[in-house]
Amino acid sequence: MAKQISELKLGILGGGQLGRMLIQEAINYNLTTLVLDPDPDAPCKSIANKFECGSITDFDTVYNFGKKADIITIEIEKVNIEALEQLEKEGKVVFPQSRVIRLIQDKGVQKQFFKENDIPTAPFQLVNSKEDLLSTNFTYPYILKQRRDGYDGKGVMKINSIAEIENAFDAPSLIEELIDFDKEIAVIVARNANGDMKTFPMVEMEFNAEANLVEFLISPSTYPEDIQQRAEKIAINIASALNITGILAVEMFVTKDGNILVNELAPRPHNSGHQTIEGNYVSQFEQHLRSIFNLPLGDTRSINNAVMINLLGEKGHDGLAKYNGLEKIMAIDGVYVHLYGKKYTKPFRKMGHVTVVDQNRDHAIEKARYVQQTLKVIS
Amino acid sequence: MAKQISELKLGILGGGQLGRMLIQEAINYNLTTLVLDPDPDAPCKSIANKFECGSITDFDTVYNFGKKADIITIEIEKVNIEALEQLEKEGKVVFPQSRVIRLIQDKGVQKQFFKENDIPTAPFQLVNSKEDLLSTNFTYPYILKQRRDGYDGKGVMKINSIAEIENAFDAPSLIEELIDFDKEIAVIVARNANGDMKTFPMVEMEFNAEANLVEFLISPSTYPEDIQQRAEKIAINIASALNITGILAVEMFVTKDGNILVNELAPRPHNSGHQTIEGNYVSQFEQHLRSIFNLPLGDTRSINNAVMINLLGEKGHDGLAKYNGLEKIMAIDGVYVHLYGKKYTKPFRKMGHVTVVDQNRDHAIEKARYVQQTLKVIS
Repeated sequence: MAKQISELKLGILGGGQLGRMLIQEAINYNLTTLVLDPDPDAPCKSIANKFECGSITDFDTVYNFGKKADIITIEIEKVNIEALEQLEKEGKVVFPQSRVIRLIQDKGVQKQFFKENDIPTAPFQLVNSKEDLLSTNFTYPYILKQRRDGYDGKGVMKINSIAEIENAFDAPSLIEELIDFDKEIAVIVARNANGDMKTFPMVEMEFNAEANLVEFLISPSTYPEDIQQRAEKIAINIASALNITGILAVEMFVTKDGNILVNELAPRPHNSGHQTIEGNYVSQFEQHLRSIFNLPLGDTRSINNAVMINLLGEKGHDGLAKYNGLEKIMAIDGVYVHLYGKKYTKPFRKMGHVTVVDQNRDHAIEKARYVQQTLKVIS
Repeated sequence: MAKQISELKLGILGGGQLGRMLIQEAINYNLTTLVLDPDPDAPCKSIANKFECGSITDFDTVYNFGKKADIITIEIEKVNIEALEQLEKEGKVVFPQSRVIRLIQDKGVQKQFFKENDIPTAPFQLVNSKEDLLSTNFTYPYILKQRRDGYDGKGVMKINSIAEIENAFDAPSLIEELIDFDKEIAVIVARNANGDMKTFPMVEMEFNAEANLVEFLISPSTYPEDIQQRAEKIAINIASALNITGILAVEMFVTKDGNILVNELAPRPHNSGHQTIEGNYVSQFEQHLRSIFNLPLGDTRSINNAVMINLLGEKGHDGLAKYNGLEKIMAIDGVYVHLYGKKYTKPFRKMGHVTVVDQNRDHAIEKARYVQQTLKVIS
């Protein structure tokens, strides 16, 4: 690339928190950022060099937006692929490549890709409609996932018995064997156009059995070295097989008998990498920039134990966001607040995150619990 | 303060790199930032919520700008004080307080403040014009400093003999005894409205005798604990005596016989604190925000050895800035680039800085030397 990073324009499809944190890193390189998002108050609005309000799924809007940039990237997969293909044909650089986004947009194609490339994953079957569920020989309970547009648990349901098929998704979906897993883990891998690859240390999700949800993310993992290496090797294998340029988040399960199964992929910065901002020498956001501008990849090692808590809108609160308890948690050492600039809160909306860093892992977890109990997004 | 930080508008006088790095931290708190700067291409331009191009020394411009903000701060001392006083009278919060900025704007008043408060500083004498120099009994060589508007070495000269008086500044100035110092050091202290205070660990400037200039800044210092504690105590004493709200950079000399003398003050984020972004648990920029919004002060401890190099425009280059060697230095672990978003370079203009972080101090210094030799701002 003859032009320098400080002379280039980066077009970002999507202007949410991932784009916002990407821009926060891009500022250090004088990178000019253009953002397209349908929400006129999107988190990127006031910090992008140029913010354009428009659809990221409409061909013309995406195509015309892309023409103004030198490199185009995404912060969400649900974008108009045909426009990206056309831009690539005309010589624009799109990273991750449109073919990678196309593959990952469809969870069915993703699963087939795993199968064809010997990537360990839970047994599955593709179905076209809920009628197909009646003829499957998967044993109950199993997981049903829509092939498209699911995120943050949406588009995923557990089918416990034949009686529940009536309420199942009636769309192209996949059935997946229910995994009796020990923990959910993730590895983020980066690959630049030279083909250099680096993984971040594996992280684990801490599940709260009482609340029945992922409570927080801990980095690095305390699984045996052998499991960590296998997980990182799987991430590397996927990035190689995809020939991706950019970063790729690989979400996996560790089963109770020590196997690793890939759950799904995200070809962009991901919630499972937010703690890298303070917890690692390079952040996932800077690493993504390094990848797509074909620069040397940064040092992914952990600096400290880091625990990340998503800050979700409280139940029963809908309106102008207020942050209760902020002053209290700021009194604790090693607590880093990231509010996403969203004006309005609603139940379970991702309004920000907090990372707690501590040289002692148990203290980091203890502090994270306190943060979680103390900081509330209300209206 | 009844309103939350995310609901408040911060007005920043000056839109240079200090304002830019302050805004980079402010983004994490959803803080709305308004910036006033006379340069239409100032570093803050594209990342402030609202950027206003105008004079920071004109009463009306500063006053009208300040009316739009909830809290007003500065990133440069040379601002219209009368406007800030008027805003304070009308109930606006100005941090640091106008009286502190007024005191620090005048190096003569600063020196008198040191004297009145038993703050150790080099012997000095105030002079009104260069004629006064003829009647002083200071021995040559001595230092002559303009009382106002000096920065980055401007407004300071060494007078070696009576013959040089002819070329001396003809403005209110101060004569200062030449200090035979071992090293220049600095301590940044923060004080919030509650009166809580915290210092960052003392840093030292590494002087290159061959080039006759400060080569880089190293944190933390390796001076004996006793000297570090004395320097931090001096910074605390000054912040207390000033009753400042905000952060205060205290530049000092360690003399060859182990005394500490205060050189000068800056009531704002300062070049001697840039390495805190990656080198310490809290950065000077976030600490300034915590101070002025009366929030708990952050953990100032060092995470790692950090060496900061200013990135100055190369001699002989004047025009659109290019960054030679960027890719090479990015290949080294622990190297953090901060470009300030200045379109044009000119000799010695501060275009950015690089911080090198390493668990081994000698390695950090070695890497910093390589960065300094490799990364060049040219046109």
